[in-house]
Amino acid sequence: MASGNRAVTYMGPRTVKVETYDYPKLVDPRGNKTPHGAILKIVTTNICGSDQHIYRGRFPSPSGMVLGHEMTGEVIETGPDVHFIKKGDLCSVPFNVSCGRCRNCKEGHTDTCMNVNDEADCGAYGFNLGGWQGGQSDYLMVPFADWNLLRFPDKDQAMAKIKDLTLLSDILPTGFHGCIQAGVKPGSTVYIAGAGPVGRCAAASAHLLGASCIIVGDTNNERLALVRSAGYETVNVSSSTPLADQIEAILGQRQVDCGVDAVGFEAHGNGPGAGEDPAAVLNSLIEVVRANGAIGAPGIYTAGDSEAIDEDAKAGRYRIDFGKAWIKSPHISAGQAPIMHYNRDLMMAILWDRMPYLGKLANVEVIPLEKAPEAYRIFDQGSPKKFVIDPHNTTKLVA
Amino acid sequence: MASGNRAVTYMGPRTVKVETYDYPKLVDPRGNKTPHGAILKIVTTNICGSDQHIYRGRFPSPSGMVLGHEMTGEVIETGPDVHFIKKGDLCSVPFNVSCGRCRNCKEGHTDTCMNVNDEADCGAYGFNLGGWQGGQSDYLMVPFADWNLLRFPDKDQAMAKIKDLTLLSDILPTGFHGCIQAGVKPGSTVYIAGAGPVGRCAAASAHLLGASCIIVGDTNNERLALVRSAGYETVNVSSSTPLADQIEAILGQRQVDCGVDAVGFEAHGNGPGAGEDPAAVLNSLIEVVRANGAIGAPGIYTAGDSEAIDEDAKAGRYRIDFGKAWIKSPHISAGQAPIMHYNRDLMMAILWDRMPYLGKLANVEVIPLEKAPEAYRIFDQGSPKKFVIDPHNTTKLVA
Amino acid sequence: MASGNRAVTYMGPRTVKVETYDYPKLVDPRGNKTPHGAILKIVTTNICGSDQHIYRGRFPSPSGMVLGHEMTGEVIETGPDVHFIKKGDLCSVPFNVSCGRCRNCKEGHTDTCMNVNDEADCGAYGFNLGGWQGGQSDYLMVPFADWNLLRFPDKDQAMAKIKDLTLLSDILPTGFHGCIQAGVKPGSTVYIAGAGPVGRCAAASAHLLGASCIIVGDTNNERLALVRSAGYETVNVSSSTPLADQIEAILGQRQVDCGVDAVGFEAHGNGPGAGEDPAAVLNSLIEVVRANGAIGAPGIYTAGDSEAIDEDAKAGRYRIDFGKAWIKSPHISAGQAPIMHYNRDLMMAILWDRMPYLGKLANVEVIPLEKAPEAYRIFDQGSPKKFVIDPHNTTKLVA
Amino acid sequence: MASGNRAVTYMGPRTVKVETYDYPKLVDPRGNKTPHGAILKIVTTNICGSDQHIYRGRFPSPSGMVLGHEMTGEVIETGPDVHFIKKGDLCSVPFNVSCGRCRNCKEGHTDTCMNVNDEADCGAYGFNLGGWQGGQSDYLMVPFADWNLLRFPDKDQAMAKIKDLTLLSDILPTGFHGCIQAGVKPGSTVYIAGAGPVGRCAAASAHLLGASCIIVGDTNNERLALVRSAGYETVNVSSSTPLADQIEAILGQRQVDCGVDAVGFEAHGNGPGAGEDPAAVLNSLIEVVRANGAIGAPGIYTAGDSEAIDEDAKAGRYRIDFGKAWIKSPHISAGQAPIMHYNRDLMMAILWDRMPYLGKLANVEVIPLEKAPEAYRIFDQGSPKKFVIDPHNTTKLVA
Repeated sequence: MASGNRAVTYMGPRTVKVETYDYPKLVDPRGNKTPHGAILKIVTTNICGSDQHIYRGRFPSPSGMVLGHEMTGEVIETGPDVHFIKKGDLCSVPFNVSCGRCRNCKEGHTDTCMNVNDEADCGAYGFNLGGWQGGQSDYLMVPFADWNLLRFPDKDQAMAKIKDLTLLSDILPTGFHGCIQAGVKPGSTVYIAGAGPVGRCAAASAHLLGASCIIVGDTNNERLALVRSAGYETVNVSSSTPLADQIEAILGQRQVDCGVDAVGFEAHGNGPGAGEDPAAVLNSLIEVVRANGAIGAPGIYTAGDSEAIDEDAKAGRYRIDFGKAWIKSPHISAGQAPIMHYNRDLMMAILWDRMPYLGKLANVEVIPLEKAPEAYRIFDQGSPKKFVIDPHNTTKLVA
Repeated sequence: MASGNRAVTYMGPRTVKVETYDYPKLVDPRGNKTPHGAILKIVTTNICGSDQHIYRGRFPSPSGMVLGHEMTGEVIETGPDVHFIKKGDLCSVPFNVSCGRCRNCKEGHTDTCMNVNDEADCGAYGFNLGGWQGGQSDYLMVPFADWNLLRFPDKDQAMAKIKDLTLLSDILPTGFHGCIQAGVKPGSTVYIAGAGPVGRCAAASAHLLGASCIIVGDTNNERLALVRSAGYETVNVSSSTPLADQIEAILGQRQVDCGVDAVGFEAHGNGPGAGEDPAAVLNSLIEVVRANGAIGAPGIYTAGDSEAIDEDAKAGRYRIDFGKAWIKSPHISAGQAPIMHYNRDLMMAILWDRMPYLGKLANVEVIPLEKAPEAYRIFDQGSPKKFVIDPHNTTKLVA
Repeated sequence: MASGNRAVTYMGPRTVKVETYDYPKLVDPRGNKTPHGAILKIVTTNICGSDQHIYRGRFPSPSGMVLGHEMTGEVIETGPDVHFIKKGDLCSVPFNVSCGRCRNCKEGHTDTCMNVNDEADCGAYGFNLGGWQGGQSDYLMVPFADWNLLRFPDKDQAMAKIKDLTLLSDILPTGFHGCIQAGVKPGSTVYIAGAGPVGRCAAASAHLLGASCIIVGDTNNERLALVRSAGYETVNVSSSTPLADQIEAILGQRQVDCGVDAVGFEAHGNGPGAGEDPAAVLNSLIEVVRANGAIGAPGIYTAGDSEAIDEDAKAGRYRIDFGKAWIKSPHISAGQAPIMHYNRDLMMAILWDRMPYLGKLANVEVIPLEKAPEAYRIFDQGSPKKFVIDPHNTTKLVA
Repeated sequence: MASGNRAVTYMGPRTVKVETYDYPKLVDPRGNKTPHGAILKIVTTNICGSDQHIYRGRFPSPSGMVLGHEMTGEVIETGPDVHFIKKGDLCSVPFNVSCGRCRNCKEGHTDTCMNVNDEADCGAYGFNLGGWQGGQSDYLMVPFADWNLLRFPDKDQAMAKIKDLTLLSDILPTGFHGCIQAGVKPGSTVYIAGAGPVGRCAAASAHLLGASCIIVGDTNNERLALVRSAGYETVNVSSSTPLADQIEAILGQRQVDCGVDAVGFEAHGNGPGAGEDPAAVLNSLIEVVRANGAIGAPGIYTAGDSEAIDEDAKAGRYRIDFGKAWIKSPHISAGQAPIMHYNRDLMMAILWDRMPYLGKLANVEVIPLEKAPEAYRIFDQGSPKKFVIDPHNTTKLVA
């Protein structure tokens, strides 16, 4: 067993460091024993766009917090009440911490577990939501392991597809959830705001769900190029051509069936030089989604951003075109994805080669743990890469 | 056949008059023949809270527009392509005008029909949505009659329950739709904002759907008394006790499963002396609905209110607590109810006496057509009555 | 702590005895420790119609098996991995034993848990499904207690409604599940085959769900009288008037929207003197449910009845009118109810007095444990009572 | 306008002829005018497996009946109440005749329309269900044209994809419906019984829906080869290796999530030399579909087959393993697909190139009308072709 545990640590805005901690124990953030927990040796642990909100100091987190919520790992220790997950299992960890025993978990809403955070009905690793240690590290304690862990049926098969499977801990189910909330089904036309990793996974999800016309909007041309290379349509929202006009040029209609917000609270308006406006993406979706269509917003919004554009925005209050939208019978859903609700299904689709387009969209680069600080910096600058940390070089994919 | 057609007419803010028009023809507002249409002799035609938005000059409508969208009547003439509805049938008219032939109608979304209004995917009688004449009148032309009309299976049985059945044209299905959008099911706890006719019908609908704790909030004590008399809980939102505290006192918890907005754009804030704020009800629902709960907003919002509190509100843009809500995984639906989706089911529930509480909640008073202007005035002052016009005294219920 | 545990024991066809066993341990039927388990002191434990299948020797069970799967009790001991259920909690026990950690449990299908029975994806107390001891006893070990137990929010309130709440462990959610599978919703017309306790709870469930016309069929007039007293319609299927004719006389139509089979494999045909036929109820539902209606069959069927009418029936193979039904686009669902999916909602409906009709329909009689053998005998003869054992006279309702 | 109308006519078992009739009128089979109708010049009209039931004399039809229910055509005449479909439109015709005005149509159940057949709640062209003339002909009258017809948005684009789009009138939505009824979603494992055109379209549909492992079973090796060439798994059910063993060899498990019956009432048992048994496919699906999985049976069953194996089968009564299945909580749906519910979505998927595998699976061969009798004969012998008649050689694809 290892004596130490290296981990990517948030030190303050735009500063992360690799620090060494004690090897994890079967104890929760309140200090209680977790006979239901397991210790994982991390195989892959990804850097997420939401980590970037923290990195930029926009999502309030304490200095010294270990980052990371997108983990895949091998079980190396189990508590006495873990019966179905076994040592040696290779597993994906849903980013939401959930108990599997409260009303919300029983109803499938692991995004709003009532037992893992004293301050809100919502827990996550490395996210100041319940104090659960992040997993950009060598080892991680996962509570309620029988409930939370998704075991890959065959380790060798899984390692061969690890660049796709590592996305199951967050961004693929998150993009998928956005599509489900937006009502994507066979034949749907879809507009996805944001070509970051979640937006690109939403495009892959829309494809898997049978969508017809899939359009992704962003201002970052490198990211949009990835989208086009996978066979979807793109719009650059910094163009002076209005979004609806751009959609009409592609689709022959000014509105789509489904809208996904894969941007979140650091949104900017459309058009050349548009400034930050947390309502901008929501309002453009309200405009371009058809009557009785639906909008899914897995992109993060918060009442905790002290850098927001005005007092309302700091309090999470935005100027939304609700009155304008009403006659269109809108349907809007938001929030974290309940990863467990989707990860097994998506794993099956990957294992049976039904998402051949995923690798191109995700554009994974595997890096060693010590390069994480640099990757945070590059990703913050708009890199089209999805950085995946392999702390032990288990994948042999570290460049 | 009658030679004239008396009808309640909007003359301008707070002025309605009974005027006489020509007997209706099988012709639509664009001047095209309607072989699919039928002429109804009106039996009951209700005054709605949404008529009051027009009455107060808050929902833009041309002077001279005939009002009324909640009609029940007897078929006295049918076009050559009406095959299943017959002369003599007593029918309820859904307030949404819909074609039954477009994509949205085929999908059940008759609230957003694409063929009956050149300016929006949405039509209604007496509402400046497609030019369809209102039905607070002696006679009315209903287009696409086989599609739109709901026939009561037995005329005598129906006339005996007409005070309940007259609610099927709008407010009962509208309240029900709000509950469905809010996810009300057996055991749900529900908060309904607004004790007007739609809010009271939402309470009745929640009961029919098996809800457990049903709480209705308003500032109007007479209306709240009706709610209590039917066996539900009430809160007065003008109290200095915050809404969540009042809910906790009733339920033992500060949050409910489901929230219904039966108020709309003329909302006022909570607390003593609170002023108008179109986001007030939405924001209070966001607060008091639990994580992964849902909100239905059948109450009307609009981008057309030139009397709204500020420029944003005039354009239908409100300051909504979306960022604050995000972590709770909210689900928000809004818009007109697709009446046809619900009216047959609710008719059956009424005919089999499954809503014995409906009459008490609705508090119907039947009036003659000529008293409509007075009823508009009284209703505007917050009357707990639901005024139902019987132009021919068919019901024999005219006071 | 008690030194012994009295329990109703199956000795062979039509023979049950109260025997005394050791006080239960935190150990499962395979001999493994259950740190997730809790010991309950039983407050109420009901005799079920499915116990009668065993009693009559029709559902194969070993001699010496402790009976009982409908338990409510107080938690008196918890294992080290029980965190949210506490000693002193008064709880309802779903009759299905489920782990809360397998794919099926995560999907809400606790009726087909994959981890609690080595022979089938399905476990139950006292039912030869995984070896879990029955609960017609003084004490019971409940595994996965945080997952399985439904805590009543207030003990005194719950004890005051215990005759209704005791039904939450099985028959009320089972009847409700039958209605859900049959598509019952507001306004539905429903035919329920069987006026035993499950059929009567299905009628109550249909009422809660807003059904319009509710018709229950049986040959037992005492049971049918209970149904009528609660306000529903009945048909006696031993009549020479065909079922569809009887339905037409009530409803004006020969078909209903929804059909529920609350009879199961010991079904008899309709008409005077009709013999046993395991397909009889299913085929009559196929006949009287309308096109695109649905059928729910919570009544038990089995491939294990060695007393069935012929070799096919013994093997669970029945002559079903599937070819005849096809053009009607039938939907048929069967199997155990996943109690956990419904019990909280139904508890809320009971606690808020939304099922005032339930007591009359259930017709509970509370008996002491030692009278259980007599109650089995009387119930087998068609008693309209629902016998509820209170082994410690906690309820003070023992006659 | 044409003076005559050539049409494929059923003369008796295994005999079809091309006969010439009058050009169609806007009149329905009861002799009533159809102002809602349109006349189509047929572009493509396919021969279906269900036509083969008629051809073989197994589905009772009168001699002289015009065959054909899978039509695509150009509108050349419209009745006075057709407003949204225009002359010149190229349209797909759903095989179900439906009115768009009854309860079932309003609920989306066009497979069980209540107004188009005096003998059952179900109508179809060329199928002895309401007397509607078949469409393997030069011209066809389509009633309720605004409701029934699906217009292709661009004629040239549609003609370029006509070999895929011609499948929208029946077999693609039928296979898709089977998948939907079977609960197919992303990640599902699926077993499809039957590699005929519907089974192959079910495989394509499962792919579009995101299924993982797709297995098709048949005894016809040519048809199975088409399935493999499109990238799916196959089993030959005439093998002496039991079906569950064959599935296990592919999937590593003996059960799948979803089962589709694309065979129907002329089913044979599995294994070498197995004879006809109408319950064989259903029972094998009951065996190989997992607990709480679902079965969809779009394959036709009937109570009208006078050639069936025994008296029960002739009456549509089959020996089904229902008692055996019960503990697995089965869900079984059957019947015609409501084509309109799916055809627009599937059209969009085809137009945006999301089903590149469809052409290979369908294996369309376009033939002139006069070759229809020969195509019936070849198809009856198990040809892997899908024969599409182009009576006017509009497609220029006639070999």
